[in-house]
Amino acid sequence: MLSAGIRISGGVSRWGRQLQQQSRSLQKSAAPGTLANLKRLTESDTETLKTSMVSVVGEKNVSLAEAVRSQHGQDEGPDKGMNPDVVVSPGSTEEVSEICKLCFADNIPIIPFGTGTGLEAGISAIYGGVCVDLSRMDKIVDYHPEDFDVIVQPGITRESLNHHIKDDGLWFPVDPGANASICGMCATGASGTNAVRYGTVKENCLNLEVVLPDGRIMYTGGKGKRPRKSSAGYNLTNLFVGSEGTLGLITSATMRLHAQPEAVAAAVVSFPDVQSAVDTVVMILQCSLPMARMELLDTLAIKSCNAYSNLTLKEEPTLFLEFHSSEAGLEYQTSSVAELAHGNGGSDFQWATKTEDRNRLWTARHKLYYAGLGLRPGCRSVTTDVCVPISALPEMIASTREDIDKSGVTGPIFGHVGDGNFHCLLLFDPANPSEYQTCKRIYRNMAQLAFKLGGTCAGEHGIGMGKIDLMEEQLGETAFQSTQAIKRALDPKGIMNPGKVLPVSTTGWKSN
Amino acid sequence: MLSAGIRISGGVSRWGRQLQQQSRSLQKSAAPGTLANLKRLTESDTETLKTSMVSVVGEKNVSLAEAVRSQHGQDEGPDKGMNPDVVVSPGSTEEVSEICKLCFADNIPIIPFGTGTGLEAGISAIYGGVCVDLSRMDKIVDYHPEDFDVIVQPGITRESLNHHIKDDGLWFPVDPGANASICGMCATGASGTNAVRYGTVKENCLNLEVVLPDGRIMYTGGKGKRPRKSSAGYNLTNLFVGSEGTLGLITSATMRLHAQPEAVAAAVVSFPDVQSAVDTVVMILQCSLPMARMELLDTLAIKSCNAYSNLTLKEEPTLFLEFHSSEAGLEYQTSSVAELAHGNGGSDFQWATKTEDRNRLWTARHKLYYAGLGLRPGCRSVTTDVCVPISALPEMIASTREDIDKSGVTGPIFGHVGDGNFHCLLLFDPANPSEYQTCKRIYRNMAQLAFKLGGTCAGEHGIGMGKIDLMEEQLGETAFQSTQAIKRALDPKGIMNPGKVLPVSTTGWKSN
Repeated sequence: MLSAGIRISGGVSRWGRQLQQQSRSLQKSAAPGTLANLKRLTESDTETLKTSMVSVVGEKNVSLAEAVRSQHGQDEGPDKGMNPDVVVSPGSTEEVSEICKLCFADNIPIIPFGTGTGLEAGISAIYGGVCVDLSRMDKIVDYHPEDFDVIVQPGITRESLNHHIKDDGLWFPVDPGANASICGMCATGASGTNAVRYGTVKENCLNLEVVLPDGRIMYTGGKGKRPRKSSAGYNLTNLFVGSEGTLGLITSATMRLHAQPEAVAAAVVSFPDVQSAVDTVVMILQCSLPMARMELLDTLAIKSCNAYSNLTLKEEPTLFLEFHSSEAGLEYQTSSVAELAHGNGGSDFQWATKTEDRNRLWTARHKLYYAGLGLRPGCRSVTTDVCVPISALPEMIASTREDIDKSGVTGPIFGHVGDGNFHCLLLFDPANPSEYQTCKRIYRNMAQLAFKLGGTCAGEHGIGMGKIDLMEEQLGETAFQSTQAIKRALDPKGIMNPGKVLPVSTTGWKSN
Repeated sequence: MLSAGIRISGGVSRWGRQLQQQSRSLQKSAAPGTLANLKRLTESDTETLKTSMVSVVGEKNVSLAEAVRSQHGQDEGPDKGMNPDVVVSPGSTEEVSEICKLCFADNIPIIPFGTGTGLEAGISAIYGGVCVDLSRMDKIVDYHPEDFDVIVQPGITRESLNHHIKDDGLWFPVDPGANASICGMCATGASGTNAVRYGTVKENCLNLEVVLPDGRIMYTGGKGKRPRKSSAGYNLTNLFVGSEGTLGLITSATMRLHAQPEAVAAAVVSFPDVQSAVDTVVMILQCSLPMARMELLDTLAIKSCNAYSNLTLKEEPTLFLEFHSSEAGLEYQTSSVAELAHGNGGSDFQWATKTEDRNRLWTARHKLYYAGLGLRPGCRSVTTDVCVPISALPEMIASTREDIDKSGVTGPIFGHVGDGNFHCLLLFDPANPSEYQTCKRIYRNMAQLAFKLGGTCAGEHGIGMGKIDLMEEQLGETAFQSTQAIKRALDPKGIMNPGKVLPVSTTGWKSN
């Protein structure tokens, strides 16, 4: 599996080459937690492992089928995934624990799987091993509407959760677009369009049940604890949020819920340029107007949106806005924002107060990924995720647009402008490796510029395998080493989702 | 120093006894990071160390004086502090780094010091060593009003920071009452009255500069990075927030700022009982009313407040409320809250819209600690800090009140009811060890009940030394072991603020 590398339609990718290099360099050293430590399963090992797994979860919940393995190794990102050797679907935390004990004993990689909607190859089984598909565990464990919290199993999706709680006037606002699983969202550190008002999963996660690589079960905030805040010891909850399955498997999450807003309105307003749109957003923030959503779509994103979702929006940089408030507060908020937008050249203000109009608008926004892909049918996308201080957004976007246009790449830009986070779909023909390389170059330039402007290469998609080469530059040597030290402390054998967040190739963990 | 223990006016406290036991048990084992590993300085060692420290920070910034050492070992909590051997006041991060290198080489404990306003003996130098007083480093390093963030040195206090930024229409809302240093607040995981609306330091900290025990300088989010959100690797920022100086010294923090509200109003309303007050708070939250502050004061707290701050509030359970909004939104919010309060038997609604009236009210609230102490002049207080799901508050408070009254202890109750967090001042005469033991028993009962109700023993004061015996029960064995593993990974010699958060007495770190 290692020598195969990752192929983008025939061309051995950078990752493929890196894996080959790793394989060679590992002939030399073999410290704990390195690739050499991980067991690579032969066909016979796999059969033996299957028997053990069947004894834990039953025959129908273990699969070696190529189609199943391939579906579990491939997410929605640009890079071709690699198959796990076995896919196991546990039905309880205890079963997850037993699976881990078996893998731990034999140094077999464990890769947690939620819905497969990630973009950074977080589920790709680079070193083979066992994919633990948590989608069967999709129940609500405990629900406390009076306390605005819920305890869920890992596989429940955000739409399903929201369906369960909507009649109580509550909702879970973190919305990355995809109908991801709640614990997958916790693992990735997801956010989305509502984060400017309601925070990311980080701010909305109160406690996690985690199975550690050796099978021990842990509660990051203590078993059954769900206070709104705590200063009791290290913040293990927020260490596991965003750890992308590299420290343990999240088997349950206690999440904060919010009251549904009394009144909601949405608006679309177009601007002569990106700077004017961003200026409007800064002024809105300065006025303390508690916006629920503030999304920027550049001209190309609007074009793709019009084509894909059958809209007739003016093809200019545009803000999609949403207001959550009381009926009385709504009027004040909307009129204040309208005034600020007009002052910055905003025009064609279109209001959507009816639920169906709003849904049409946000469905179009959420389908932007597919709308963008539709600009060049058959293409895939290198999706960027930089997040910069908001004052740096105009420079960041202008420079990106120039780089994209100069390179002849099709690349709509859109994002969560209130947070300084935006995405760029850099489209490439999978049959054309040089296009892929061009997109990767633009993405790398964007990351470099984001760093220079005080930003991050990953606002909400995580590092996975896709951005792993940027980690040390993002963090600096010492924070990178501290990250390694924490990984080693909690996953001493290095079996949890190896090759994600931290490169396994940095063998013989640097001493702390 | 060890054999002296901690004395509460003549009686050797539980802690004193525990330290003596530790000392004895350490004759037997000496794993890395244990007490036996730490160097206990002789007089001659101290003189040598002083000379080294003087070479780093200059003569006038090193002190061996008893008065200085004693001031730096004692916080505002109930337990008698222990003096460090040396107090050093660095002027730069580089100096902090040099201090750490010297201590690291000789296994000398390092205790960071901000303002000394903590309550859990976090600055007590249990094993002697070097107190690093960061108060000279009190400058604003970089300020980005347009991005709503500021980078500060560790020693700047929240009042000083707010003074610097107020003319730009900005403020830093985290307000624990005391005029604590920003980095001390980060280290403790502080929050306060505004957390229900603006979050705790956790939600308001974007990046930290940290000096690790071996002197390496690290940026938890990467050097110079200040995006509003990031999913790039483990959340080191929130690992260090709340780590109480046990993993490294915070030498700079990048904090989020907020726009000052356009309009502010405050109100006081009294209720026939605690349940009615709490019911009102739950309804306010359910209506999504974005309250800035919701504080509950029980009858005894109101009595102490009236006496100390010369007020004439009705002596019943009372809510102190604050509204931050636009002028238009304010009217809606205040009338909605008034309606909900009346529905729950709230009466004597008193409004404070003028700045001076509001200030008088909140000054009285912030002085409650001293007002409470004033109920029995000469007493000190065991201050509890439980935080429970909001629906459990009435049971939590009623049971606590019963326990206090039955024990004959004077104990006003007040707190951040919107978060489910409240404090109880359990007053004891320092000359009467049995009173202290009674207060400790009540505090322990409260912690047990909080755990049972899904809460935490520490909402915002941290663990320090004061609650260290509750840590394993709070977290459970596995999370406790994971906490130890992280401590060992980042502080392998165990020299950072030893005996805080985790007991040093758990020698020979359990294997992970």
